[in-house]
Amino acid sequence: MKYLIVHAHPEPQSLTSSLKDVVVKELESQGHEVRVSDLYAQKWKTSIDSNDFEQVSKNERLAIVQASQDAYTRGTLTEDVKKEQEKIFWADTVIFSFPLWWFSMPAILKGWFDRVYSCGLAYGVGEYNASHWGDRYGEGAFSGKRAMLLVTVGGSEVHYSARGISGPLEDILFPINHGMLFYPGFTVLPPIVLHNTISVTEQGFQNASNEIRQRLRNIYSIRPIPYRKQNYGDYLIPSLVLRDDIKSGSKGFSIHKNGMQE
Amino acid sequence: MKYLIVHAHPEPQSLTSSLKDVVVKELESQGHEVRVSDLYAQKWKTSIDSNDFEQVSKNERLAIVQASQDAYTRGTLTEDVKKEQEKIFWADTVIFSFPLWWFSMPAILKGWFDRVYSCGLAYGVGEYNASHWGDRYGEGAFSGKRAMLLVTVGGSEVHYSARGISGPLEDILFPINHGMLFYPGFTVLPPIVLHNTISVTEQGFQNASNEIRQRLRNIYSIRPIPYRKQNYGDYLIPSLVLRDDIKSGSKGFSIHKNGMQE
Repeated sequence: MKYLIVHAHPEPQSLTSSLKDVVVKELESQGHEVRVSDLYAQKWKTSIDSNDFEQVSKNERLAIVQASQDAYTRGTLTEDVKKEQEKIFWADTVIFSFPLWWFSMPAILKGWFDRVYSCGLAYGVGEYNASHWGDRYGEGAFSGKRAMLLVTVGGSEVHYSARGISGPLEDILFPINHGMLFYPGFTVLPPIVLHNTISVTEQGFQNASNEIRQRLRNIYSIRPIPYRKQNYGDYLIPSLVLRDDIKSGSKGFSIHKNGMQE
Repeated sequence: MKYLIVHAHPEPQSLTSSLKDVVVKELESQGHEVRVSDLYAQKWKTSIDSNDFEQVSKNERLAIVQASQDAYTRGTLTEDVKKEQEKIFWADTVIFSFPLWWFSMPAILKGWFDRVYSCGLAYGVGEYNASHWGDRYGEGAFSGKRAMLLVTVGGSEVHYSARGISGPLEDILFPINHGMLFYPGFTVLPPIVLHNTISVTEQGFQNASNEIRQRLRNIYSIRPIPYRKQNYGDYLIPSLVLRDDIKSGSKGFSIHKNGMQE
């Protein structure tokens, strides 16, 4: 199979980068093809701006959605963005490797999504009508591909537990897993998470490495996060509110998983 | 009073930038002092890396937390970062103005938090003992200051409602409001949000402008989001799990607000 690793850490010898190396080595030893987008190493341009759209002159008002769609359609996106899009299409599975900084991903990785996820590719896709509200949330360009987060977290696991002060890690990651991955069609696997990264021991690193290897060996038998698809009857269209008779009285992120499968 | 606006949009004539201009104009007309960190205009360096820490040589392993703390303590942070930190200390209220891109802030603004929030300033502050787990979540360097988000959202409000497919906007913003603002001590005001930005009309813009002006006139009578402070008895220390007798049986982001005040 073909794996793309999108990696975001400035220090090649960091814990996060070392875990990424474990992933690459394990996948290669299994005979898979692996490509790595090491965003710091490739000096990824982080912020989307008018330089992303050569067809927009410097004096012209930049309307990003329109500019993005035009450049994607005409094939005039910058080479670095095109290359990342090609890598996603090449891959069967995409793994995002990063440290949790301020309850989200590092800016350089956010800039990968901001720039690579063009209009016409990752959003603004498909028909909008009374029974179908675009190809999104379970449908879209990346349908059939799997994605997974590999995240290192400074804080301890209990601080991110169901009633921990930082909020449940699953909810902290929902805007990424559901909003950035499920939205354009990826099947999303549960994340691999390493906590307490400030004080991790050699043994802790070995345990995490073993967990990663184990996971990668079983990756095709792991049950994905059972997010509900948008256009298959669970949601009213066009309000996209979950039907009253499903998880009645409940609200929040968790209702967007199909409880029958949990 | 003194207001800092941290603004993230590449196009000065965009809706988001125009709303920021409404904010500045209204605050100035009320006689307040206003400073703007227009991140695109000032070509903000987005990604944190070894260039942020002159004391770390290029061949040395970069341990970001340690490097950040050292540079902050010794006063050797880069000038652009020092200037932003000074602006925060100068301000009574900080307003963050940005479009919601992929269920989070633009990369350039995330890079502001990644780089400006040094160890020893925004985290790693205060004593850690059996009754006090650092100055964070309601205590910290920015205590006594207020912060508020001004967010433009492409999608419609109902898609971000309690049972809408995108998840409640309040929860989407929790990692920012609670994790990036309340954590280092800010008092967090409810956000101002404008939806359906793709199809906003002149009338819609006027309505949003009026809402902003109204809000800014009443900003000192608005009730902040009643997040629970970490070190005042609601949480067990050091697990930082909410006490069993508070919101018993509930979990998720919402339990970290004090329901008595809602």
